[in-house]
Amino acid sequence: MTDDIKRLALACKEAAQPLSQLSSQAKADLLQAMAAALEADGAAILAANAQDLQAAREGGLGSAMLDRLLLDDKRLAGMAAALREVASLPDPVGQVTREEVRPNGIRVRKVRVPLGVIAMIYEARPNVTADAAALCIKAGNGVILRGGKEAIHSNTAIAASLRRALRQAGLPEAAMTLVTDLRRETMLELLQLNDIVDLAIPRGGEGLIRFVAEHARVPVIKHYKGVCHLYVDADADLDLAVKLVVDGKVSRPSACNALETLLVHQDIAGAFLPLAAKALLARGVELRGDEACRVLVAEAKPATDEDYAAEFLDLVLAVRVVPDMASAIDHIRHYGSDHTEVIATRNDAHAATFIQSLRAAVVMVNASSRFSDGGELGLGAEIGISTTRLHSYGPMGLEALTVERFVVEGAGQTRVPIAID
Amino acid sequence: MTDDIKRLALACKEAAQPLSQLSSQAKADLLQAMAAALEADGAAILAANAQDLQAAREGGLGSAMLDRLLLDDKRLAGMAAALREVASLPDPVGQVTREEVRPNGIRVRKVRVPLGVIAMIYEARPNVTADAAALCIKAGNGVILRGGKEAIHSNTAIAASLRRALRQAGLPEAAMTLVTDLRRETMLELLQLNDIVDLAIPRGGEGLIRFVAEHARVPVIKHYKGVCHLYVDADADLDLAVKLVVDGKVSRPSACNALETLLVHQDIAGAFLPLAAKALLARGVELRGDEACRVLVAEAKPATDEDYAAEFLDLVLAVRVVPDMASAIDHIRHYGSDHTEVIATRNDAHAATFIQSLRAAVVMVNASSRFSDGGELGLGAEIGISTTRLHSYGPMGLEALTVERFVVEGAGQTRVPIAID
Repeated sequence: MTDDIKRLALACKEAAQPLSQLSSQAKADLLQAMAAALEADGAAILAANAQDLQAAREGGLGSAMLDRLLLDDKRLAGMAAALREVASLPDPVGQVTREEVRPNGIRVRKVRVPLGVIAMIYEARPNVTADAAALCIKAGNGVILRGGKEAIHSNTAIAASLRRALRQAGLPEAAMTLVTDLRRETMLELLQLNDIVDLAIPRGGEGLIRFVAEHARVPVIKHYKGVCHLYVDADADLDLAVKLVVDGKVSRPSACNALETLLVHQDIAGAFLPLAAKALLARGVELRGDEACRVLVAEAKPATDEDYAAEFLDLVLAVRVVPDMASAIDHIRHYGSDHTEVIATRNDAHAATFIQSLRAAVVMVNASSRFSDGGELGLGAEIGISTTRLHSYGPMGLEALTVERFVVEGAGQTRVPIAID
Repeated sequence: MTDDIKRLALACKEAAQPLSQLSSQAKADLLQAMAAALEADGAAILAANAQDLQAAREGGLGSAMLDRLLLDDKRLAGMAAALREVASLPDPVGQVTREEVRPNGIRVRKVRVPLGVIAMIYEARPNVTADAAALCIKAGNGVILRGGKEAIHSNTAIAASLRRALRQAGLPEAAMTLVTDLRRETMLELLQLNDIVDLAIPRGGEGLIRFVAEHARVPVIKHYKGVCHLYVDADADLDLAVKLVVDGKVSRPSACNALETLLVHQDIAGAFLPLAAKALLARGVELRGDEACRVLVAEAKPATDEDYAAEFLDLVLAVRVVPDMASAIDHIRHYGSDHTEVIATRNDAHAATFIQSLRAAVVMVNASSRFSDGGELGLGAEIGISTTRLHSYGPMGLEALTVERFVVEGAGQTRVPIAID
């Protein structure tokens, strides 16, 4: 049976209604039950995953893809633990963000409510099925999950397990709907349903995200890439700046919050670059620098314009020596991706100017770009990250899966006096 | 010369940068200067408006449209006063909405920043040119104004006046850009510029809004219509409920927050409907009711299904008697537009259930739907209203023209320990 995607989406919207009214305790209990269900169904889930892995090997998928696809006891335990962590987070629904009694006596509150129905579009990692469902449900939303075909058996088994927990909690399973018809035209249909789907969140490679953004009629929150910069100011603390560039580049090169380009003020380049290069080269980082950089660092290869625009996601770092902070800011405005930008400086005025002059979702002073992450920034969890400036900007937590609406209480106030005879 | 719309939009994005960095005082002074400029240029603006009016008359536009188009000394003074009111509002930019020091010592703040570039797409009212520009600028945004062709001379004169104030404040005029090439394909081009325009806000008839929503690649915040309901519960205060229905329907029938349908619990219909009908009929309201209503109110005409879905924007009210609150909620879910829904009741539990069961942007208890307005709800001003649940939901004030981003300050913290030898 092929999915009738509109029927599925409508059922999810219907099912989202009781979910939106659940108490915080009921949602926490539900997520605990989902974690237990995953553990109870571990054997079935791993068996389904084995099918996916075999198909992937036969399909000749690379080892990186196979690793993303792989589930084992440890990763299953990690999925269950993640569900329990989400269960323990504060419930954003019902939070009062603004309260005022107007001169006419009406009481006006802004109260967080769920967005409604969220469509998650993702690729090979089966754990996203559980992680994303947990966050959407915690915020009282229905969720439509459309994962990659490589993981279809794993996702189906995980979804079946989580849906059983919904059913046993007396909730409609449709609140969590896995799309099993993975034809591209079906995804296109889903992305057109702007009367049903309140938000689509694509997670994966730039190709997937661009496809979703190009074709969606529903609102999309996305980020394409992270071309993150560290600017080392003239009066930066040298050792501090070296630590930031090493952590930013080396601690997890494949992350979107890893550093891709180092900008150094010319007055400090002579002292800083040899130190930084030594630490980076010792950790296997390839440096691609401009003329001024290569005078100071013999090992640096020449940098091209493409290098300054690149998200390497690898142990490669572009380097440029700049005459002043304004040039660094211009460089970042030209090549940056509005993700995360960092300045190393001891000068508060320079830090303030750097922050004010850049549009990025996350701007940092004397801290590693690798902290640009929902968990590290205190959101508790991360459903995604936005580099577009509407609704949410930067790492997105549970609050980003809600919206504030107005609740007004009065005692018969009217806009004009009404005389009833 | 026809506009190169992309060039104009890019210039506006460039110009938005210095605007985004202005102090609150500088923005307030700028808006005061804009108000003074409008007053100083009053004669030129009225002369331009006279051209528009003459063309409109020659084009055979109706009197309602002519009235929307008309400017006179009183309306000019009103535009200037509106600018001064916006000048006096608190500045949302720079507001810290969240602050936390993480266990590792990094200080994380969420800070409001401007959205960037906002495109306003509107119809005949020339005052929107000044009102919308003022709100966008107050929130530090560049604004691209695309008004209706009926008002092109008025809009050009108003924009010239306001841009002079920008220039005299030492700011790039492009921060406020009026589109004078009103070809539809040019608007389409503008709506495709998702790398430049951060938000489009269409204001006008449902046709314009649907056109923008259908064709935009840029994010759009919209509301199509307001089909607002008053549900009179079994234990409502009768006089209070009569006042709410009269105010909701009569105080300004053409407003989107006016009542269109009255739902009455059957247990109170016999006592309430004759009272309400008397007050409404005395004010010239046409009633269209179901069978049960027409038994109680002889003057009521039969209501059709279309009547229950209609935004009359006129002295017409649809009426239905319902067996219980659940039926009222089902009716609203089916026919409502997620704008504003009101319950009249003395029963707190019923009020809570009504609020929780409805998705509307504004839900009210014992207050007139006509308070569903940015000014009345305490936002200070209103740039528009959203019935879609992303970014902003309901009346939108200055905050809705900003987004929160992360500002992080550290002392060299790294994600992993980094040893520098």
